[in-house]
Amino acid sequence: MIEQLKKPALVLDKSKCIAHIQAMQSKIDKDCIFRPHFKTHFSDKIAQWYQKEGIKMITVSSMEMAKYFASRGWQDITIAFPFNRHWLKSLNKLCKKHTINIVVEDAETLKHISRETKYPVSVFIKTDTGHRRTGIDARNYKEMDSLIDILKNEKKLYFKGFLAHAGHSYHSKNKEDIKHIYFDALEQLLNLRKRYESSFPNILLSYGDTPSCSIIEKLEHFDEYRPGNFIFYDLMQYYLGTCLYEDIALTLACPVVAKHKERNEIIIHGGAVHLSKDYLLKNGSKNYGEIVLFNSDMSWYRPEGRAFITSLSQEHGVIKADTSLFNAIDTGRCVGVLPIHSCLTVHQMNYKYKFIK
Amino acid sequence: MIEQLKKPALVLDKSKCIAHIQAMQSKIDKDCIFRPHFKTHFSDKIAQWYQKEGIKMITVSSMEMAKYFASRGWQDITIAFPFNRHWLKSLNKLCKKHTINIVVEDAETLKHISRETKYPVSVFIKTDTGHRRTGIDARNYKEMDSLIDILKNEKKLYFKGFLAHAGHSYHSKNKEDIKHIYFDALEQLLNLRKRYESSFPNILLSYGDTPSCSIIEKLEHFDEYRPGNFIFYDLMQYYLGTCLYEDIALTLACPVVAKHKERNEIIIHGGAVHLSKDYLLKNGSKNYGEIVLFNSDMSWYRPEGRAFITSLSQEHGVIKADTSLFNAIDTGRCVGVLPIHSCLTVHQMNYKYKFIK
Repeated sequence: MIEQLKKPALVLDKSKCIAHIQAMQSKIDKDCIFRPHFKTHFSDKIAQWYQKEGIKMITVSSMEMAKYFASRGWQDITIAFPFNRHWLKSLNKLCKKHTINIVVEDAETLKHISRETKYPVSVFIKTDTGHRRTGIDARNYKEMDSLIDILKNEKKLYFKGFLAHAGHSYHSKNKEDIKHIYFDALEQLLNLRKRYESSFPNILLSYGDTPSCSIIEKLEHFDEYRPGNFIFYDLMQYYLGTCLYEDIALTLACPVVAKHKERNEIIIHGGAVHLSKDYLLKNGSKNYGEIVLFNSDMSWYRPEGRAFITSLSQEHGVIKADTSLFNAIDTGRCVGVLPIHSCLTVHQMNYKYKFIK
Repeated sequence: MIEQLKKPALVLDKSKCIAHIQAMQSKIDKDCIFRPHFKTHFSDKIAQWYQKEGIKMITVSSMEMAKYFASRGWQDITIAFPFNRHWLKSLNKLCKKHTINIVVEDAETLKHISRETKYPVSVFIKTDTGHRRTGIDARNYKEMDSLIDILKNEKKLYFKGFLAHAGHSYHSKNKEDIKHIYFDALEQLLNLRKRYESSFPNILLSYGDTPSCSIIEKLEHFDEYRPGNFIFYDLMQYYLGTCLYEDIALTLACPVVAKHKERNEIIIHGGAVHLSKDYLLKNGSKNYGEIVLFNSDMSWYRPEGRAFITSLSQEHGVIKADTSLFNAIDTGRCVGVLPIHSCLTVHQMNYKYKFIK
């Protein structure tokens, strides 16, 4: 029972999740691949919701995750994280029965794979279109040429295309910024395709990130789209303008364990180990999550006076409440917290979706 | 093998941990109780290191953790987190064979426990000596009186004493601040004891937090001490001046997955899901962990040009390196990261201590 919680628990609105999958699928042109990122949910159950909608190709972020989904029947998996050469033994095992695409961005790793692999390996070049975290800069043709040369000459390496994650879209100020990032990335990747298509006529351009995929009306420019977060959305996406408040499909139910009238503070069992320390800054104060209240059917609503977690330690969250919310909630009951970043919150909760509405 | 890592892994220096346990124990007066907080490590193996040093009483932060350690032979456990009334069934089960102390700070919860419990329950009042997170303000005698009245009249509740956690010591500027917090808390708790000792002649004063317990030379003022973090320490403690750099007993080994020469950046597999998003601000830039290199015996050392994780996403850490470190480390190898806050890092790693030196 959600009202008798012994510890924080995830509450998921299944119908919202499925609506998000369907909406994203309907935006992606039928000639493009929808390869959702499964690191967001990392759950067999949720994977099945995707499967029912006809999804067959997926993205993950580690070899561990690739093994998890491969063992549950997923046949075509891209590991969208710079390939660690010590994964090679696992890769060889998986490749016997599955299509596994890997992502590489340095010559040494490519040469190592080519030397040590038993089977041909499908490789995307991790391409940086502006995020400046990982990937070869899409405009750094010298480095691209040297990787492409290796891919041309090593018979066990099969070059699939360029893969970019525009993570800088998460820091955009508005929708125009996000569109700019998207079309700028497109131009960079199209230039790369042009440069190498005489040697490789089937180069795929793979792109992902929830902000872009949510904002762009028709997803028809790249060959493949890999958003993940959109299945849940969260407060960060809401404030970015990529989803509505009502779209947030996930909340963390937290027991109320103390109240401090002199400060109008409600203390919940729900801290960094449950929500992560991600926060938003609003007017100089930190917001670690917004408070909602549950209806008896586990749906949730914002209380009239909006309230946030204003500070967070390992196990505790502190909610600044107005008098009406303060009086409405007693110890022994629970409140919901809309997460700032749902990917981190579900990770913190070990991907245990306790209540599915 | 630490050099062939498939994913981030914790490396623990056992001899440092044991030295920390012994040092803390030798500082605590023999008439006082050393009741270390086991939430820091949450590990049966590490609990045994404590046991070998003669520790019999422990602190935990949840019913789940109390059950874990109770089932492994720990007889005397304080759950230092505001008691959730939905834990009562579990408490009754545990109380049959174990001494369990709980922490309460509101009248409704006390009355609920008294009404519903099968067995007598030992209760500490959570007391706030300045942290302003949980607990009754130690100077709020009106509220204290009302809780004490309940404890006097309810036969199934056995009042043990006042329990404080001076978490604000973590935000101290220097050692003098920490000492001030400690002796100020002492005065507040002694006043409480004086106020109620005619009714309760055996009131215990329980105090904890690694900064105070590390700074104060002889721990002889409170009846009980409950530090936890000190077994590992971390960068936050180092910068606070409560430990030496060499005292840090824990590091996260992370595979190097990419390098970017144009930015002198090394990318590791090691992100928020491994380290947590805790950071320190130094000269306006964020530090999510300091880089160390491993010797062949798994001991570690600081490279000559010091280096830090300067940005962190879900799975990636970005290290700003000088040219010598940049050239010394290749993809496929690994580096160590000294955590900002070891309690969070070991939680993120599911308390799996992969390498114990």
